[in-house]
Amino acid sequence: MNNRISIHQYMNDIGDRLDREFSNLFPPSWKVPETLRESMSYSLMAGGKRMRPLLVIAACEAGGGNRDAALPVACAVEMVHTYSLIHDDLPAMDNDDYRRGKLTNHKVFGEASAILAGDALLTHAFYSVIQASRQHGVPAERVLSIVEDLAEYAGPRGMVGGQVADMEGEQGLTTLEQLEYIHLHKTSDLIMFSLMAGGHIANCSDSQIESLRTFGHHIGLAFQIQDDILDLVGDESKLGKPVQSDLKQEKVTYPYFIGLDASKREVERLTAEAKRVISEGNFTDPTRLLEISDFLMARDH
Amino acid sequence: MNNRISIHQYMNDIGDRLDREFSNLFPPSWKVPETLRESMSYSLMAGGKRMRPLLVIAACEAGGGNRDAALPVACAVEMVHTYSLIHDDLPAMDNDDYRRGKLTNHKVFGEASAILAGDALLTHAFYSVIQASRQHGVPAERVLSIVEDLAEYAGPRGMVGGQVADMEGEQGLTTLEQLEYIHLHKTSDLIMFSLMAGGHIANCSDSQIESLRTFGHHIGLAFQIQDDILDLVGDESKLGKPVQSDLKQEKVTYPYFIGLDASKREVERLTAEAKRVISEGNFTDPTRLLEISDFLMARDH
Repeated sequence: MNNRISIHQYMNDIGDRLDREFSNLFPPSWKVPETLRESMSYSLMAGGKRMRPLLVIAACEAGGGNRDAALPVACAVEMVHTYSLIHDDLPAMDNDDYRRGKLTNHKVFGEASAILAGDALLTHAFYSVIQASRQHGVPAERVLSIVEDLAEYAGPRGMVGGQVADMEGEQGLTTLEQLEYIHLHKTSDLIMFSLMAGGHIANCSDSQIESLRTFGHHIGLAFQIQDDILDLVGDESKLGKPVQSDLKQEKVTYPYFIGLDASKREVERLTAEAKRVISEGNFTDPTRLLEISDFLMARDH
Repeated sequence: MNNRISIHQYMNDIGDRLDREFSNLFPPSWKVPETLRESMSYSLMAGGKRMRPLLVIAACEAGGGNRDAALPVACAVEMVHTYSLIHDDLPAMDNDDYRRGKLTNHKVFGEASAILAGDALLTHAFYSVIQASRQHGVPAERVLSIVEDLAEYAGPRGMVGGQVADMEGEQGLTTLEQLEYIHLHKTSDLIMFSLMAGGHIANCSDSQIESLRTFGHHIGLAFQIQDDILDLVGDESKLGKPVQSDLKQEKVTYPYFIGLDASKREVERLTAEAKRVISEGNFTDPTRLLEISDFLMARDH
C-alpha cells in the first residue's frame, strides 16, 4: 500500500482494478447463455460507487493483508449488492425505470431475465468468495467464516429481512425503531460484512473483527442518514436525481423523525465514534479506513 | 443404516426427518419479519418429493458417512430447489397459479414477497451448508468444496443457465442438443450436486465423487425423460395434473424428438449405466442408491 496517494486516487485505483476483475468474471471457456452473461454484466458495470468492495480491500489492508487475496470477496460483495438492486427495481417491487441515469435491468432485458440475472449474481458471489482460498491460499476456516457471514448478513436475518420490512413500511406508518431496523439490515449489514470479510482475509484477531463490525455498523447508519439529508437539501445536479423524492413518496426518513439539524449531528457523532473504534483497534495501518469515513460524511452525492 | 427397512420406509423416514429439521430452520431468537418466515415455510413445506435431500443422505450413507452430518446440506439443496420453483412460477416466468395442487407462493403472498422469499431461501441455503462444519465437524476443506459446487451447479453455469436457455427455447424451435442442455442444467445439475455433496460429507475419494457425479448425470437425465413420457402417457389421477400439457404448450420433449419407445429405452439404458457406475465405485454400501435408481425409473408420478 502506498500511503502517499490521495484517498481519491486510492478509491479510483480500486475501482479500476475491480472493473478489470469483473471483465474476467466468466472465462470464455464457460458455457453460459449469452443473454445471461450480458444482463449480469450490464448491471455490474452500470457505474456503482464500489463502496462495499472498497471497504473489503481497505479493511484487509488495514489489517496488513494482501489486496489480491481480498479481490474475490470484493467482487462477491458487489455482485450481492448488484443483485439486490436488480430485484429491488422490478415492477413488483419499487418499479424503477432508471438507476444512476441508465435504464434498469428489466427495462433492457425484460423481467424474467432480470430475475434470473439477480439469482445468478447472488449464487455466483459465493463461488467468487471460495476463490480467495483456491487462488490465493486464504485458510479454509477463514473462508468458511466469510461464507457464513455473507449468508447471514445478506439473508433473511440480514439484507433480505430489511427489504421485506421496508416493503411493509411503505404500506403504513413506520416508527423510528422500525426505520433503524430497515436501515440496519438494508444497508449496514452488507457494509459490516465487507469490513469483517476484509479482516478475515488479513487474518485479523476476533477483537479486530469485532471493531470492524462496529465501525461498519456506525458508518452504515451514518451513510443512510446522509442519504436522507441529501434527498432533502442536496444539489440535484450532483445527486443525478430529483431532491425531496422521499417527501413526495411519503417515505419516512431520519429528518422526518428527529429534524434536519439533529440528523446532521447524528452523522457526525456516528462517524467520530466509528473512527475512535478503528483507531483503538490495534490495526497495522488504519489510515485508509479513517479517510473513508471522513469522505463518506463529506459526500454530496 | 438399517438395510432391513424397505426403500419406501427409508424414503419416508428421511422425509419426516427433513420436515422436523425445517421446522427448526429459524430459532425463535432470530429476528426475521413474520411474513418472510411464513412465505419461506409455505413453499418449503408444500409437499415436495424431497428427492434431492434423499440423494444427499443416500450418497453419504453409501460412502459410510453419518446421516446427521448430511442433514444441513440436505436442507440446503431443498431450499435451493424450492427457491427455483418459487421464481419459476412468477408471472414474469411460467406464470403458474398452482403447484402440487396448492396455490403458488406469489398467489398467496404477492409477487414482491415471492421474489424475496426465493432470494432468502437461496442465501440461507449457503448458511445451512456451513452448519455441516459448525455443528457436525465436517472438515472445512470438504465444506468449501460443497459451497463451491453448490454455487457452480446452481449458478449461471448451472441451474440458472438452464432456466435461461429454457425460457429462450420457449420462444422458438429447440434442437435435441438444446433440449439436453436445458435438462442437464435445469434438472441434473442439482441432482449431481446432491450426490457429490453427500460423498464429500462421507469423506469419499476423488474417484468416488466422480462416480457419484456420473450416477447423478444419468439418473437426472432419465428422470427428466421419464417426466416427458409421463406427461404424454401418464395417469392424470396419479400425476395430479393434466397429461399432454407439453403438447398443448408446444413444448419440445424427448418423445417429440426420438419417439416414445426410444425414450423408454433411453430411460432404461441410463438407469442401467448409472447402477453399473455405482456398483463398481467401491462404496461401503451402495444398496440404497441402486434401489433409488430403480424406484425413479418405475415411478408413475
